[in-house]
Amino acid sequence: MKFLSFEYQGNQTYGVKVKREEAAWILPKVFEAFGSEAYPHTLLQGLQQNAEIDFQEAVRKVVAEAQKSSDKESFKAPFTAIKFLPPVTPTNNVIAVGRNYKKHAEELNNEADSLYVFTKAPSSLVGDGNTIPLHADVTSQLDYEGELGIVIGKYGHQIPKGLALDYIYGYTIVNDITARDLQREHQQAFLSKSLIGGCPMGPYIVTKDELPTPENVNIITKVNNEIRQDGNTADMMLKIDDLIAEVSKYIALHPGDIIATGTPNGVGAGMQPPVYLKSGDEIKITIDGIGTLANTVAE
Amino acid sequence: MKFLSFEYQGNQTYGVKVKREEAAWILPKVFEAFGSEAYPHTLLQGLQQNAEIDFQEAVRKVVAEAQKSSDKESFKAPFTAIKFLPPVTPTNNVIAVGRNYKKHAEELNNEADSLYVFTKAPSSLVGDGNTIPLHADVTSQLDYEGELGIVIGKYGHQIPKGLALDYIYGYTIVNDITARDLQREHQQAFLSKSLIGGCPMGPYIVTKDELPTPENVNIITKVNNEIRQDGNTADMMLKIDDLIAEVSKYIALHPGDIIATGTPNGVGAGMQPPVYLKSGDEIKITIDGIGTLANTVAE
Repeated sequence: MKFLSFEYQGNQTYGVKVKREEAAWILPKVFEAFGSEAYPHTLLQGLQQNAEIDFQEAVRKVVAEAQKSSDKESFKAPFTAIKFLPPVTPTNNVIAVGRNYKKHAEELNNEADSLYVFTKAPSSLVGDGNTIPLHADVTSQLDYEGELGIVIGKYGHQIPKGLALDYIYGYTIVNDITARDLQREHQQAFLSKSLIGGCPMGPYIVTKDELPTPENVNIITKVNNEIRQDGNTADMMLKIDDLIAEVSKYIALHPGDIIATGTPNGVGAGMQPPVYLKSGDEIKITIDGIGTLANTVAE
Repeated sequence: MKFLSFEYQGNQTYGVKVKREEAAWILPKVFEAFGSEAYPHTLLQGLQQNAEIDFQEAVRKVVAEAQKSSDKESFKAPFTAIKFLPPVTPTNNVIAVGRNYKKHAEELNNEADSLYVFTKAPSSLVGDGNTIPLHADVTSQLDYEGELGIVIGKYGHQIPKGLALDYIYGYTIVNDITARDLQREHQQAFLSKSLIGGCPMGPYIVTKDELPTPENVNIITKVNNEIRQDGNTADMMLKIDDLIAEVSKYIALHPGDIIATGTPNGVGAGMQPPVYLKSGDEIKITIDGIGTLANTVAE
């Protein structure tokens, strides 16, 4: 399934993509008509309650009912009429891993031999199609980083590598927008990675059953339709299970937490000479099996 | 006022310290008896709604009623019967500033000339009196850092220095527990600062009217009653208004956000030879006008 959060007719809601249609089942509406009274009011709640109630199974049942309904179209929101939101806003900051693709570490002259984990503030999250402010007042080196995002499905601390998959709910796409000048100036990556609009995420959370080989998918980033990053998650140094084991060795993970897994080479700062984002640039990140996350840089 | 969150008779609740008594008014109970139907169900909600309803004024009114009540004792929870919780769990990770006291930067041989801002995971928060796990499986260099915490009272982005005080709700005490070996190994401070129990906070949030000179208060850290840190917030390099202006220059601040303002010299890693925390150690951080945050290291 492909879950999404969105704004529709003035309300913030969430849903699941209708198969073979550019539309979403509006899940709160579907649950109200065909489900029990108690249903998750946000996608994050769905993930949080998943330990007790199988969220995907509950959705499957009510959507099957909606599908049979005579006025089934009333339960759908066409993508042309919605504004995508970040699929979830986690209760922790977005967790992000740097220097996880060797060629990317090299293009920025960074050492790649140490665990490099920082966070991005939730206020930096935006959905697919939303604009990214240029922030020209604080940076002149705004850059993109296309990344696979792991979505955590249940609480865990010191998760053994061999059980890591059990803790994954699904996958999404993250654009780890970075102000390179601030990143160098500040030593710690948090502020340079947390500008407002600096964490586009989405369009969907794809459940793990629909992405059976997450460690061998292409990840392509285009700026104004020019290919800049042409990577594959097979080149990650710490693999998905390593990352979950390593991060949870120190901190607790919670349903809805996001781990952005690092970016392949091809960022603007690595070009000769470097090319940074400017107003009007459109960044599209495509990961096979998930979709495309597209955002445009505003003023 | 001194606000606190706590567990009492099996419930998580919040309150305000009774003047001249070691007890809290149980605010949800007081609001139910003497206030309107809609009242904040957590201290964080009180801060979040403060822009519309003056939380402190609302509390003052209902507490005055409770005070007059014939069964006023039933609205109180004695401190001997409660377990302190972190006063708030912010919607962002705890924001923390490093290297903000010159002598502390020097004792760790760090440069002190760059803005050094990182975050601590919410799952690291514990209240006054709670134990801190030793985490001997991942670190052998657990260390304390006594700090003044700023509690944000309203949303702000790019807050001018001259208006910074308007955005402060109050102050608290933070113990920025750090695994020194991991901090060196990881480059980024997030994981080494986010171990479970690694962010004791409290016991109270003291409203800003009760701490009129936050930039000139003593901050004393004792380990097993031996003074280790004997500092004063006057020695902060970036002052409170600088910190709010600098951090909000890049990221948005929200009600309930915490900015830990850095630690004076005297941490265990700065001793000759270094002395790290061990099981049974009791760490007490006292800030004039706020109180004492005491935590013991467990196994």
